Amino acid sequence: MSGVTGIPTATISRLVTYLRILEGLEAQDVARTSSTDLAVLAGVTAFQVRKDLAYFGRFGTRGLGYTVPILKRELLRVLGLNQTWNVVIVGVGRLGQAIANYPGARDYQFQYVGLFDVNPALIGTGVRGLTVRHTDELRDFVGSTRVDMGFLAVPPERAQDAAQSLADAGVRGILNFAPVVIQPRTVERSGLQEIGDEWRGVIVENVDFLAGMKRLAFYVLNPDLSTTGPEEIEE
Amino acid sequence: MSGVTGIPTATISRLVTYLRILEGLEAQDVARTSSTDLAVLAGVTAFQVRKDLAYFGRFGTRGLGYTVPILKRELLRVLGLNQTWNVVIVGVGRLGQAIANYPGARDYQFQYVGLFDVNPALIGTGVRGLTVRHTDELRDFVGSTRVDMGFLAVPPERAQDAAQSLADAGVRGILNFAPVVIQPRTVERSGLQEIGDEWRGVIVENVDFLAGMKRLAFYVLNPDLSTTGPEEIEE
Repeated sequence: MSGVTGIPTATISRLVTYLRILEGLEAQDVARTSSTDLAVLAGVTAFQVRKDLAYFGRFGTRGLGYTVPILKRELLRVLGLNQTWNVVIVGVGRLGQAIANYPGARDYQFQYVGLFDVNPALIGTGVRGLTVRHTDELRDFVGSTRVDMGFLAVPPERAQDAAQSLADAGVRGILNFAPVVIQPRTVERSGLQEIGDEWRGVIVENVDFLAGMKRLAFYVLNPDLSTTGPEEIEE
Repeated sequence: MSGVTGIPTATISRLVTYLRILEGLEAQDVARTSSTDLAVLAGVTAFQVRKDLAYFGRFGTRGLGYTVPILKRELLRVLGLNQTWNVVIVGVGRLGQAIANYPGARDYQFQYVGLFDVNPALIGTGVRGLTVRHTDELRDFVGSTRVDMGFLAVPPERAQDAAQSLADAGVRGILNFAPVVIQPRTVERSGLQEIGDEWRGVIVENVDFLAGMKRLAFYVLNPDLSTTGPEEIEE
């Protein structure tokens, strides 16, 4: 990936959408697709599809389109989903347990290696074969176990502190399920406010847990604007 | 909204993103924004922001940009989030309970009016002040209570049947959290396969529950391509 710069974040979100569409096509035994088909299913233009993919190489054949399993495999590789990710979950209430048990995460080789909470009633209990530990133990745990990402599933008022614990422990990727904005700690240096060292290189991705509800509200209100079904995409 | 046609589904997804960004700006007491700022935060072009908004009216002032609370209020109205939505949840395991308890859904006036499951251990128990009922009771329930949407939080192998129960009961909007594609029932009519009557006008929105994990994998792998922080957007 070296040398690739300036890729819009929206492109990455769309790659995730294309991947999901390709998985759907594969489940329906569709062997080939085109930028036009992908565009219809993703609600964008065919030009956009081709432009998004072109950041990462040449995947299709002019006039023949894309082979579904090959393009899927390439997108898995581009997104880094062909490798194992060691994940800790911070917050093991209903949402954290739902995440730990969500079917599909294992298909992408997300491996839960540690569960953390501050609730004494949860600490020491077992979830999915893992023992819930106190969040205070995060740093020691990360010191002895490879942890690539932390998923935050704590109440909103605890999210900032829990994110700080992950950054302090040296976890480089944080996926925030709480409906709040996580801010890196700032420090004053030479009279300027700068991001604390422990936050350098930390990636925070926010999940808009309610995004689907909001899209659905629009389409229930405006059913004539809803997407065409996949059965209508054949040319 | 009558007369508005041909709005890309990706535009609706982006409106949801813009809304979340505006809420973040409002939380940081930012009073004004511009299509350029929104574009940076959403990872799209300023032209795209203006084009997306232009489907629904004129919200900004040339050269002055947008007033954050006004644009937020307008997007809430466009998305239908300024009105009450009565929702049933089908599937009251960990994920269904996490959804029922997720903070924030009430801010958008999503009101949970019924919870349904097929698990005898759950039926009759109380969650968030509601008694869990058997999914077989869905039709009678919808006959006596206004239900605008159903959220599907069942295991993947149960999703199609549960979606069918919602469509049979007359629920017009389905939000599917399971990692499977929901297919409308088809019937043969005059020798052609057609969508069953109970599915006409039903909107199905799929939540890619793992989308955030996939985006995070990409950015942990390619930290140099990560988004700029909100502190860098001021001109």
